[in-house]
Amino acid sequence: MPAPIEFYFDFSSPYGYIASTQIESIAAKHGRSVDWHPVLLGAVFRLTGGVPLASIPLKGEYSARDMARCARLLGVPFQLPSKFPIATQAAARLTVWAQQRNVDAAKTLASALYRAYFVENGDISNPEVCADIAGVCGHDPAQALAAMNDPAIKDRLRQAMDAAIARKVFGSPYFIVDGEPFWGADRLDHVDRWLATGGW
Amino acid sequence: MPAPIEFYFDFSSPYGYIASTQIESIAAKHGRSVDWHPVLLGAVFRLTGGVPLASIPLKGEYSARDMARCARLLGVPFQLPSKFPIATQAAARLTVWAQQRNVDAAKTLASALYRAYFVENGDISNPEVCADIAGVCGHDPAQALAAMNDPAIKDRLRQAMDAAIARKVFGSPYFIVDGEPFWGADRLDHVDRWLATGGW
Repeated sequence: MPAPIEFYFDFSSPYGYIASTQIESIAAKHGRSVDWHPVLLGAVFRLTGGVPLASIPLKGEYSARDMARCARLLGVPFQLPSKFPIATQAAARLTVWAQQRNVDAAKTLASALYRAYFVENGDISNPEVCADIAGVCGHDPAQALAAMNDPAIKDRLRQAMDAAIARKVFGSPYFIVDGEPFWGADRLDHVDRWLATGGW
Repeated sequence: MPAPIEFYFDFSSPYGYIASTQIESIAAKHGRSVDWHPVLLGAVFRLTGGVPLASIPLKGEYSARDMARCARLLGVPFQLPSKFPIATQAAARLTVWAQQRNVDAAKTLASALYRAYFVENGDISNPEVCADIAGVCGHDPAQALAAMNDPAIKDRLRQAMDAAIARKVFGSPYFIVDGEPFWGADRLDHVDRWLATGGW
């Protein structure tokens, strides 16, 4: 059984959202599964000195154009949210909670959270908004809301973040394929080719 | 006559080097020419707060791996120089000087400078090394050496930098195709497609 593809993403990352719409079909083509790892880039940036794209002069402006262009090329609906970037603790904790219950249902929920933010301009930094989305995905909204405040869930996310940093994850999306790291939605073609060829 | 593709690059940029080996053939496929614009990213970074890739924790290490991987995929010879990054005033000034004499010969020279640095580990921050390379490319080495100290050439590069910043160039490689900006060697496929389709 080949190892799953590790897919690290921050819910505030437009390129993470774009990648989330592509990675499962790329993996399936090669008989692989995908482990989804929500991460908090803010915590990573404190270590690496990184800053949110949108805040960088010139690069921020360019990136807004590039994100939309990349999404159009792939036929992925996309709209830069009016509040961007946002804190993503709530969405990440909710996903971690859902993963403990059912991994596939958690992917559905994570995709719904991403869509709510990058298509419908929903503010997923707000736990109540997240709980509503969980409700639409078949979870109990009250349980979902409680989960985002559960110290055990917070702890689990913290451990997952430590593990991600130990794996040298510094951006979103970030993939690890059989030990080989790939950063960025623009490396999806490399991921695809690596899976097909075993590397070059 | 369609507008030339604007190609901005810093001589210390590995992805700029990789792009320099590809952009002419992409342009030719679509009946386009390419204007080569050497830029000094250091000057841009002072405006944008950017830092050299190699100096960023985790990202620097990843990037070294990614550069080599991208080059291998394209069949482009590449070796991360032992001195990296470097100041690129000398190489940029020499290129500007050569452009005043003959644009095509200047592309040959720029490619030779890039190859010297990223294939042969030559220190092109050193004007004498640059002058030797100019000599191999059929220029007079003494004239080349003088050009790199010529206040008129320095001024011309400064003006070119101001123009690049006015065009919002913030990285290397950076392309402008019929007004549309593209940043990164990983956008060469977008440049190609944009030229083919007129945009999407």
